[in-house]
Amino acid sequence: MALIVQKFGGTSVGTVERIEQVADKVKRFHEAGDQIVVVVSAMSGETNRLIGLAKQIMEQPDPRELDVMVSTGEQVTIGLLTMALLKRGVQAVSYTGSQVRILTDSAHTKARIQQIDDARIRADLKARKVVVVAGFQGVDEQGNITTLGRGGSDTTGVALAAALKADECQIYTDVDGVYTTDPRVVPQAQRLDKITFEEMLEMASLGSKVLQIRSVEFAGKYNVPLRVLHSFQEGPGTLITLDEEESMEQPIISGIAFNRDEAKLTIRGVPDTPGVAFKILGPISAANIEVDMIVQNVAHDNTTDFTFTVHRNDYQAALEILKRTGVEIGARESVGDTKIAKVSIVGVGMRSHAGVASQMFEALAKESINIQMISTSEIKVSVVIEEKYLELAVRALHTAFELDAPARGAE
Amino acid sequence: MALIVQKFGGTSVGTVERIEQVADKVKRFHEAGDQIVVVVSAMSGETNRLIGLAKQIMEQPDPRELDVMVSTGEQVTIGLLTMALLKRGVQAVSYTGSQVRILTDSAHTKARIQQIDDARIRADLKARKVVVVAGFQGVDEQGNITTLGRGGSDTTGVALAAALKADECQIYTDVDGVYTTDPRVVPQAQRLDKITFEEMLEMASLGSKVLQIRSVEFAGKYNVPLRVLHSFQEGPGTLITLDEEESMEQPIISGIAFNRDEAKLTIRGVPDTPGVAFKILGPISAANIEVDMIVQNVAHDNTTDFTFTVHRNDYQAALEILKRTGVEIGARESVGDTKIAKVSIVGVGMRSHAGVASQMFEALAKESINIQMISTSEIKVSVVIEEKYLELAVRALHTAFELDAPARGAE
Repeated sequence: MALIVQKFGGTSVGTVERIEQVADKVKRFHEAGDQIVVVVSAMSGETNRLIGLAKQIMEQPDPRELDVMVSTGEQVTIGLLTMALLKRGVQAVSYTGSQVRILTDSAHTKARIQQIDDARIRADLKARKVVVVAGFQGVDEQGNITTLGRGGSDTTGVALAAALKADECQIYTDVDGVYTTDPRVVPQAQRLDKITFEEMLEMASLGSKVLQIRSVEFAGKYNVPLRVLHSFQEGPGTLITLDEEESMEQPIISGIAFNRDEAKLTIRGVPDTPGVAFKILGPISAANIEVDMIVQNVAHDNTTDFTFTVHRNDYQAALEILKRTGVEIGARESVGDTKIAKVSIVGVGMRSHAGVASQMFEALAKESINIQMISTSEIKVSVVIEEKYLELAVRALHTAFELDAPARGAE
Repeated sequence: MALIVQKFGGTSVGTVERIEQVADKVKRFHEAGDQIVVVVSAMSGETNRLIGLAKQIMEQPDPRELDVMVSTGEQVTIGLLTMALLKRGVQAVSYTGSQVRILTDSAHTKARIQQIDDARIRADLKARKVVVVAGFQGVDEQGNITTLGRGGSDTTGVALAAALKADECQIYTDVDGVYTTDPRVVPQAQRLDKITFEEMLEMASLGSKVLQIRSVEFAGKYNVPLRVLHSFQEGPGTLITLDEEESMEQPIISGIAFNRDEAKLTIRGVPDTPGVAFKILGPISAANIEVDMIVQNVAHDNTTDFTFTVHRNDYQAALEILKRTGVEIGARESVGDTKIAKVSIVGVGMRSHAGVASQMFEALAKESINIQMISTSEIKVSVVIEEKYLELAVRALHTAFELDAPARGAE
């Protein structure tokens, strides 16, 4: 008998029919003898409807009152799903975040969970009840309703799984698992049976939007086994765990992530003096622009070139700031480019295998793809290339690292 | 400086525009120096939408889970109204029933208020905040969300006014007060400045649906001055108080109430033995049919006639039961009539004025209206007449008891 936390997002509970399907699924697990806690989001569209109402009154809605309103979305879903379970003869009970109680700080609309009181849920599970909990919400010390911010239902699921020491936290979504890369780009992409938290974090932050980064961090921190599954299809999904041992038997590289959302800025001919990096990036971060990759070339002739990437939405603002900085510090020129893409290979296996980066560069060279920037971490190598080569690069790397699915017979 | 509880119903907060108008009104009171607690219902249509969703899943929705869902309607309104106040520079804060806390019993969907914790509200009022409370809902000892049943927002308003010892509980609605009778029947009907709780109860139970009976009972019990006002028009409305002294100066009769919802049943030639009334009405009440007026004529020839009224919806069922009873007890015949109407004169003044009933009968006789049944209470005389004479009877009585508004100049 396992204790399982199951999280269903807004699309999975978007209609009464889908809620009935979710109830069928939950019932099957419950009948198999497992203890089940279900975390649900608001029905798709509902949160936006509520925010829309609020914005009709206040351009910038008051955060406390917005949380009071928006938290009703999940509250409706828990009632509906619990009824659907009761109708099926499954004993069930619903709780809001306040009722559980999921204690958070008081940072309305982006609160962080501090503590979960598991007494009530444990008693219900012991009585063989399915417990249905509203995701995305909590309550602060003063009894004010808080919300965790977008995607917060994943976090609720993981936090509950951690508090209850659940055997698994299952995140139901509209894909059947985590893939080696985006199947729309590489038809041979394969579903991974297993991936580590670190790999998942790198994949997620690079654009594989299956899970909220925060919930993966949380799961990793508390070692909650996380499984990504399809809401309405059967299948094992992808298990995300700490367990590196078993991953070792898997390929060195788990997946290829990519991202078209960035733009590149370069300042050339910068006098190579101490503190120059701060002089360049200080004004950028002061303007609340987040910088991703940073590359500084070795100086020659006492000047250096300095390149970094920002989100494309911030490109214009960043370029203007950089040009002003360039004049101040006597740089030769400040230029930028939005037609770039970032491609990364991710895998804990590369820790113990040398030569992964050069294997990557070789595969790209074979396709005559020029590398503009390189950045590495322990389990990831990222390169910036011209955007038009993105698909070619991803396919080449997917093949080079032997991630392609075996060819299937003609169907 | 007065402490005022203001209750706005679903129509008054039915759109964002109306919520803005309510905020304008609340702001005016607040700026005049009053301490204001506002109780709001769900936006009109929202409660039905939520119940509709629930019924898609369960024909008879689970009461606990239905309360979880339905209570979200008011929760959205409190957030919106509080934002509208904040936007106007009025310090305000919202509370759900659980947050206040409005403690109820555990009778989901028809819970009764047991206790209200006023500490939080008092502290906010002291800090010059407007407190916005979700009507219709509470929380039981175990922390389960409860609702008070339809119209429960009026009850919330009155209960809060009682707990806070408010100077007045203002119920905002779509009429500008309580009238001497329905203005659609008698154009000369006048708004009453004042009416007693008892009179209001008789008026309400007889079909003047301005206020929920339960909230009037509650207000009377705790002596909370209640005022009925129009949400979007200026005016003094109608004050409902215990205060009989001042009412004495008013006419003997406060208003004419009427009701077309009843049907009449008669059993004739019943052997006049002890216990016969129970033999007749016992099976009716066992079938959960409520009986309103009951008249038994004096016996002659050792038999008697027995007549009573029920709601028209229960007419068929009641008649079948009565016919079976008639056979059992050897009555001559059992007959019924749905084409009846009940007309009542209501007024605390009649306590100290003899002849009010005969004045009523005289007025009806003048119009040749036959009286089928008569029933009296301390502050009410009701008659049953043929339905087609209803309007004529109401107008005749309105004139006879000098309730008609003075004729206005041609406009």
